[in-house]
Amino acid sequence: MEFDTIAAISTPMGEGAIAIVRLSGDEAIPIADKLFKGVGGKRLKDAASHTIHYGHLLDPKNDEVIEEVMVSVMKGPKTFTKEDVVEINCHGGIVSVNRVLQHVLKYGARLAEPGEFTKRAFLNGRIDLSQAEAVMDLIRAKTDRAMNVALGQMEGRLSKLIRKLRQEILEVLAHVEVNIDYPEYDDVEEMTHKLLLEKAHFVREEIQKLLQTSQQGKILREGLSTVIVGRPNVGKSSLLNSLVHENKAIVTDIPGTTRDVIEEYVNVRGVPLRLLDTAGIRETEDIVERIGVERSRQVLKEADLILLVVNYSDQLTAEDENLFEVVKGMDVIVIVNKTDLPQKIDMERVHELSKEHKLVTTSLLEDRGVDALEEAISSLFFAGSLEAGDMTYVSNTRHIAILNQSLHTIDDAIQGVETGVPIDIVQIDMTRTWELLGEIIGDSVHESLIDQLFSQFCLGK
Amino acid sequence: MEFDTIAAISTPMGEGAIAIVRLSGDEAIPIADKLFKGVGGKRLKDAASHTIHYGHLLDPKNDEVIEEVMVSVMKGPKTFTKEDVVEINCHGGIVSVNRVLQHVLKYGARLAEPGEFTKRAFLNGRIDLSQAEAVMDLIRAKTDRAMNVALGQMEGRLSKLIRKLRQEILEVLAHVEVNIDYPEYDDVEEMTHKLLLEKAHFVREEIQKLLQTSQQGKILREGLSTVIVGRPNVGKSSLLNSLVHENKAIVTDIPGTTRDVIEEYVNVRGVPLRLLDTAGIRETEDIVERIGVERSRQVLKEADLILLVVNYSDQLTAEDENLFEVVKGMDVIVIVNKTDLPQKIDMERVHELSKEHKLVTTSLLEDRGVDALEEAISSLFFAGSLEAGDMTYVSNTRHIAILNQSLHTIDDAIQGVETGVPIDIVQIDMTRTWELLGEIIGDSVHESLIDQLFSQFCLGK
Repeated sequence: MEFDTIAAISTPMGEGAIAIVRLSGDEAIPIADKLFKGVGGKRLKDAASHTIHYGHLLDPKNDEVIEEVMVSVMKGPKTFTKEDVVEINCHGGIVSVNRVLQHVLKYGARLAEPGEFTKRAFLNGRIDLSQAEAVMDLIRAKTDRAMNVALGQMEGRLSKLIRKLRQEILEVLAHVEVNIDYPEYDDVEEMTHKLLLEKAHFVREEIQKLLQTSQQGKILREGLSTVIVGRPNVGKSSLLNSLVHENKAIVTDIPGTTRDVIEEYVNVRGVPLRLLDTAGIRETEDIVERIGVERSRQVLKEADLILLVVNYSDQLTAEDENLFEVVKGMDVIVIVNKTDLPQKIDMERVHELSKEHKLVTTSLLEDRGVDALEEAISSLFFAGSLEAGDMTYVSNTRHIAILNQSLHTIDDAIQGVETGVPIDIVQIDMTRTWELLGEIIGDSVHESLIDQLFSQFCLGK
Repeated sequence: MEFDTIAAISTPMGEGAIAIVRLSGDEAIPIADKLFKGVGGKRLKDAASHTIHYGHLLDPKNDEVIEEVMVSVMKGPKTFTKEDVVEINCHGGIVSVNRVLQHVLKYGARLAEPGEFTKRAFLNGRIDLSQAEAVMDLIRAKTDRAMNVALGQMEGRLSKLIRKLRQEILEVLAHVEVNIDYPEYDDVEEMTHKLLLEKAHFVREEIQKLLQTSQQGKILREGLSTVIVGRPNVGKSSLLNSLVHENKAIVTDIPGTTRDVIEEYVNVRGVPLRLLDTAGIRETEDIVERIGVERSRQVLKEADLILLVVNYSDQLTAEDENLFEVVKGMDVIVIVNKTDLPQKIDMERVHELSKEHKLVTTSLLEDRGVDALEEAISSLFFAGSLEAGDMTYVSNTRHIAILNQSLHTIDDAIQGVETGVPIDIVQIDMTRTWELLGEIIGDSVHESLIDQLFSQFCLGK
């Protein structure tokens, strides 16, 4: 395909040692050459691919120095976009990197849209759509395991599975096609039915397996929304601090997104907890007290995990009982804290109240019980299955939705065969399944979807 | 010199397309080689200098994929530090870049201190101290002109001047030395005195000239602290918006520094205004009303520029008069706003009150008078001299302090010669001047000062 030449700042904005302005397209090298003055008058167009060149950028208009730079020249097709790529490494200041970008734009490049470099990698056939999506997942990964899931998907692990399923469907479709053309053979119809049913069941099982990984995949990708609740002074802050300190929380002020809250990510045995309302907890405000039981339920419903803390050294109050009421039916771990103090709580009642939940006793002050808590969190969502590092997780909402749709169409196909629906109707359901799966890897998607997907990327990628 | 191998993240922290982990030292290439698996088993140690290699980082312990990377190999001495340098370009996510760094540290590199790469460039003799300091100024530059000043200093413009002065002093010292050794010649003493005086005056003038650029240099580097004051509803917010919108303000949330306020930088004809208390202005709170006249004076005293706004369509109030009182003796531009409405203000009184200040009339609503205001700001601090793009500005507080000290020692020398102080005493003052100037470029500085200077750098530089 033929595209114009795009440019963007590819490093995060802010002050740092190095920033990169990246160009991609046929004119990438000529545009950089207009500005670049290397040692000894070296020209970038004469440079070998994958080489680095020290020099200055000068404005050709007045020969004023723009920046001191290192320029990397990479010639297509062995590049990220399969096009010629130039990376200009300059000083990581806001003025510096903007100045370099402005001059590159002035001399012929167009400002890249978010995700446009990766979009080109996709449109030029270097990666498929699920791999492209994994690039962004990798950048946004909050834990090692989330990154491994993204890396796996980026390397094409999911694509390979999807391709295999599509191939299976294609083969049975070809077979059906042949048999429709030669209906004179007697046993052909029976054989076709048998083959169809067999293959459809196989495809269905594989889709089902993938979907089974999706809850965990989504958690790995997006983090487990976690809320800590409990009466004042039961140890909510201590719990937060314990989780944060023990597990090297990543406090992120995610730039460039619509979210304007600061989120705290805590990595508990590879499970990323996204702690909500931590500011509130730090001030030991109480969510139920503040907004009432009904609204609290609404707020808490959005959480994936509730950590309910009660005080071992105090009697259960109406407020505690209230909290148990509020979290009924949710994923809850009950934490009986302050076991370092004399018992006053009625443990029988606590067990009764938390019969549907996991229960852990801790002394956060003395750092006891934290291991058991982490074990409880991890096993609640992963039941030990997380250890297999090479598992393929489906983590992307779009993929999950498509897999669910294709589960329906394959079910229709199966039902069709079983109830003796004409074979060319069954064929339509199989074809639809094949098309749907193609949308995951981008083999059959609308341009508008592609545009929308890549627009969610960060700039410069 | 011999150093160990250091590593750090050299791009700003945050989510972006690309992040860089940089290594420098003898072991940079071997360490990267332990982790790198290129296409076709290519080894980095066999790579030519200044080449780029695509591949994966694998943990040698278990062959697990760490990241997909592009590795740049640059062999000393033609590198930033004069040592072997490896730059690992990975995906710009927080987990990704930390993971790469952790593995590089695990396999032999030491985490670099802030500024340690630049410190090595200095210690290995590639750049002098004032050039090293300019690197950080360049990264922190808030306007094009500030960046040009830093670029000039980085290219050695200030160093060249300082070296020239030191050479002059050295020559006269050599001359004096010779004459002291051969005192038998009669006219030698007189000649020595004459030469000494001549050279000392020359050096003094040059130092003086440099110091004259320092106020402007400091403003270019740090921005002009600017406060907008005025009664409620005189147009303070409009003024702010007008300056911000017209001049593409850079709103910076400077990461990694001790400052936790968001500052707004406005670029007015190359003069960077650092707008203080803009949050307050946006809420049209009034500083004088809020904290009283005396404390306001204290707060405003720290500002380099006060923009005092009064209302053309309203009578002067006691509050207005108060404000004029508060800003007495400061650098003030009086802005009579709302000329689009009928006049009610007593302009004679305004002129009287602002006789020591510049005065501009505006209608910010109709966008009139903004040019005149910008002209006033620019001429107040630069008196037209800013246009010369190739001027050498002294902008660094350390340099200014040293230049002031050397002005004293050269004065002492001049006075010594003039009052007939013995020549070997004068010699001491001249030598001290030479030493002081050497501190600017780092020819004669203590190790502790060097450590302290570089510790103010950002990580990875």
